[in-house]
Amino acid sequence: MSSGAPLPVSPLAVPFPAMPAIPGVELAVARAGFYAADRPDLLLMRFAPGTVCAGVFTRHGVGSAPVDWCKAQLGPEGGAARALLVNAGCANSFTGAPGAEAAERCAASVARELGCAPGRVLLASTGVIGVLLDDARITPLTGALAKGAADWRDAARAISTTDTFPKGAYAEARVAGETVRLAGIAKGSGMVAPDMATILAFVVTDAAIAAPVLQSLVRAYVGRTFNAVTVDGDRSTNDTLLVFATGASGAAPITRLSDPRLADFRAGLEAVMLDLALQLVRDGEGASKFVKITVTGAKSPASARRIARSIAESPLVKTAFAGEDANWGRIVMAVGKADEPVDRDQMSVRFGPLTAAKDGRVASDYDEAAMSAYMKNAELEVGVDVGVGKAQAVMWTCDLTKQYVAINGDYRS
Amino acid sequence: MSSGAPLPVSPLAVPFPAMPAIPGVELAVARAGFYAADRPDLLLMRFAPGTVCAGVFTRHGVGSAPVDWCKAQLGPEGGAARALLVNAGCANSFTGAPGAEAAERCAASVARELGCAPGRVLLASTGVIGVLLDDARITPLTGALAKGAADWRDAARAISTTDTFPKGAYAEARVAGETVRLAGIAKGSGMVAPDMATILAFVVTDAAIAAPVLQSLVRAYVGRTFNAVTVDGDRSTNDTLLVFATGASGAAPITRLSDPRLADFRAGLEAVMLDLALQLVRDGEGASKFVKITVTGAKSPASARRIARSIAESPLVKTAFAGEDANWGRIVMAVGKADEPVDRDQMSVRFGPLTAAKDGRVASDYDEAAMSAYMKNAELEVGVDVGVGKAQAVMWTCDLTKQYVAINGDYRS
Repeated sequence: MSSGAPLPVSPLAVPFPAMPAIPGVELAVARAGFYAADRPDLLLMRFAPGTVCAGVFTRHGVGSAPVDWCKAQLGPEGGAARALLVNAGCANSFTGAPGAEAAERCAASVARELGCAPGRVLLASTGVIGVLLDDARITPLTGALAKGAADWRDAARAISTTDTFPKGAYAEARVAGETVRLAGIAKGSGMVAPDMATILAFVVTDAAIAAPVLQSLVRAYVGRTFNAVTVDGDRSTNDTLLVFATGASGAAPITRLSDPRLADFRAGLEAVMLDLALQLVRDGEGASKFVKITVTGAKSPASARRIARSIAESPLVKTAFAGEDANWGRIVMAVGKADEPVDRDQMSVRFGPLTAAKDGRVASDYDEAAMSAYMKNAELEVGVDVGVGKAQAVMWTCDLTKQYVAINGDYRS
Repeated sequence: MSSGAPLPVSPLAVPFPAMPAIPGVELAVARAGFYAADRPDLLLMRFAPGTVCAGVFTRHGVGSAPVDWCKAQLGPEGGAARALLVNAGCANSFTGAPGAEAAERCAASVARELGCAPGRVLLASTGVIGVLLDDARITPLTGALAKGAADWRDAARAISTTDTFPKGAYAEARVAGETVRLAGIAKGSGMVAPDMATILAFVVTDAAIAAPVLQSLVRAYVGRTFNAVTVDGDRSTNDTLLVFATGASGAAPITRLSDPRLADFRAGLEAVMLDLALQLVRDGEGASKFVKITVTGAKSPASARRIARSIAESPLVKTAFAGEDANWGRIVMAVGKADEPVDRDQMSVRFGPLTAAKDGRVASDYDEAAMSAYMKNAELEVGVDVGVGKAQAVMWTCDLTKQYVAINGDYRS
């Protein structure tokens, strides 16, 4: 159970968008009391019969009970779903067999209320690790949750831990002449003692997409959305992305990945996933700068990604952003420590439109005053060309501030 | 050029040891003026004819001019050396051909004074990256350096950047019935704007060890000394470890790695290297805790090392140490994100003598009060058994404090 005063809203926050109800989806929230504060900490999404689900989970070697549960229900090609139950305040991770049994009881309780098989109820948890989920706080509420109604903002708030603003994204797309809707919510890397930096993200659409097709799309886009953002390089045991398709829009069902009628839906899905992912960075703990890092000239896309990640996760680079310092030397250091192919004497580094280094040395027109002025922006772009190929990658991150250390280290005196 | 008030001495500092002169080695320091403050920033070590040198350098993809120079002179099996010139305040890194030429002129100037080939003069630099070394500050001083005298403490201070205490280590060993001496100095990960976290370490001995043998020993021990410590995971373009053997002790020369007379010398060399490496951690920027991490039960030594490094470099783990929080959940998180073979349900975590988790869940005798009391120690031990094998690894690190962010981010307003 966590306590403490709420954190100030991130200076990089964006407003919660207008998000309509999605046909085939009903939302309800409740308070199980995992937090001392009077806030909802339970979310139930109820789905129309026929809804399918695709999932991507933490690659973490120490997955949690709810992650294990979802993987077992969905399998590698996605599967059917009638409900999603999410709790904040207890991750039910590293809790052994008793944790698995608690998760199972929660799913069974929802299933009884909805008249479906327990395996059709997916689960997600976020919060304290190593504490067994007290399902006796949850199961008495499933009856009310099965009938309740809430909107997207309520839902986004119910799954938050120390997020400083609720995160939502919405898009529409055309499938075979019909409009379909995509709505998503996420919670980010807010942590309080001794919580974990769990990412939970849930997207629903009323398009009719076969589970294996949906699973392929989600897997394809996660690399350049949720896996292209980093706050501190730490990953949670509970990270969960679930995408549900209810089919209630009436648009033609799509059963093949190669179907050309998917084009617009693909764009919409990627946009919603990227929007949510970038909001996670905007709510990075203590963040004061939102930074886009583009690596070009790499040998391969994987190499470009590793270089971009090395820059994005370097404490020296991130503290320089916090200090509004165009410290290209630290960028060079972070490129080098990635141990990827680069040509030192062809490398260039730019901050926004300003070139800091070119051909492996400081730029001849390096302008300290212009550089310092640029670094005062809340949103920064760093470009690095490593001079050995044509591959590129983009990664988003935030700065590393004293506030980060305070949030993560100060809660005990 | 860096400025600013000196940092307070690390609370984890150790005293500079008594270190005698080493036969065959002479030291001299001078002030080239790379710092505004009145402090020595140049060191010359002069070696007797016949001295050999072994080196290990940054694996960084973007090495500096002095690193390039040393690698070219020594080759993969070590080589002969008559001098080592070190400057602090300018790393001469990412400076292209002009940087290489400046380094060459420094070596040539020392060589002229000592009457040796320029290739017998090794070089090391630390300080600002991307700034061409102004060798005109150095070459006028080589005449005085060729005659000057200084002690080990002077030498350790001359190579410091923002180290808060000078670092030295000393040991003696027996080789074929004779006493030989090993003395080392190092500079650590102090950084000031926009300097780099360079590690420089130099060890000298009066034993007579053939260069290829010395090179093999240094390479063997670097993994469990300098490569087993980490402050923030960032690596410098300039990291340099050089070990010199003058042969002036009169002890029998050793020409084979398998020579049993090497046993005691091996122990002495590893002890000096480890002592210096641990002092780097003790002077980690903003450090208030010295932490030893032991991983056991891993599939292979390499796997154990990767898990230990994942723990040692996790910002969430390191901020928890700063907060004196026995946050074993974060340890579990860091184990998992290493993507190495582990058995979640066999894992255990201990802090010092206290078991936090066992068999994949919180220990039945978990004692919060005892745990909190333990975490108040300045020196901490964390043990993790991952339950899949017999391999182990040790890594040392420090905590991540607001002072770290202040040092690295606050120098511009």
